[in-house]
Amino acid sequence: MSDETEVTAGAREAWLGLIALTQLLPPLLDSEASRESASNHYEYFVLSRLADEPTHRMRLSALAAATNASMSRLSHVMTRLEGRGLVARVPCEEDGRATNAVLTEDGAKLVATAAPGHLEAVRERLLSALTASQIAQLGEISTALLGVIDPSRRPSDACTPIVAAASAAV
Amino acid sequence: MSDETEVTAGAREAWLGLIALTQLLPPLLDSEASRESASNHYEYFVLSRLADEPTHRMRLSALAAATNASMSRLSHVMTRLEGRGLVARVPCEEDGRATNAVLTEDGAKLVATAAPGHLEAVRERLLSALTASQIAQLGEISTALLGVIDPSRRPSDACTPIVAAASAAV
Repeated sequence: MSDETEVTAGAREAWLGLIALTQLLPPLLDSEASRESASNHYEYFVLSRLADEPTHRMRLSALAAATNASMSRLSHVMTRLEGRGLVARVPCEEDGRATNAVLTEDGAKLVATAAPGHLEAVRERLLSALTASQIAQLGEISTALLGVIDPSRRPSDACTPIVAAASAAV
Repeated sequence: MSDETEVTAGAREAWLGLIALTQLLPPLLDSEASRESASNHYEYFVLSRLADEPTHRMRLSALAAATNASMSRLSHVMTRLEGRGLVARVPCEEDGRATNAVLTEDGAKLVATAAPGHLEAVRERLLSALTASQIAQLGEISTALLGVIDPSRRPSDACTPIVAAASAAV
């Protein structure tokens, strides 16, 4: 093959691999999450993101950004989680116009004892297929791609004083 | 940070990046595909995979594997695409029990003139954020992860004589 053909073939393989991951990973994570009372991975992601905050609360807009979701998707999920007593929505003390999502005691219990086992097992199983260098590469590649997909992407502001937007316990 | 803490932080960043990609890439591809008469990216993926075959046909089971979908998902999409005259289902000549998906002339026209422009622009825009080494790394990382997600994954058998399962034109 010429150099150009090799580059094209390599780009095609990388692209098809990325597409396949976006198709096959979500149903796997959903099925693992559902084995332990979170209905799907996104619901678990929301709960675990809140659990990751020392105050167990985040401004809704920051939570949407931290979980890569629109406000409308998050609202929909918050309503479902509220119905199960796992979260609550309360006015933000520092900014009356804003709303905080708060993890309830039951929500914290679910995150601490239920889904994580399965989901972390999946994460470990997947990442253990990669070398330490590949894990570092994956972080850099994801950051570069996400920067193109969403140029406004950045660590999110939150109402709560302590924020570690990049450190959700997934 | 200790070495172990760095490894853990790196793995977390890589994992969160991967999750974010699986959340943010599909809606972007769907929206680009829908701008040009394919209803979503998966429909376009099916059409382009068939167009990639010299005979414009594949056994349904091979097409499902090549597009990372279950047979039931593919069947559903085939019915929609058939309704629009873009594909047809015909018995496989070599194996009477099997069915082939065939791209119609209208289907081939759609792949040749419509969606590719947008979708290839997206692919180019994303991949141009990566270095040549990162593109190669992404291919290897995807292959390693997909091998864990679906250990049975392999180039698929097809009824048609010429198969290039890894070379779909996306």
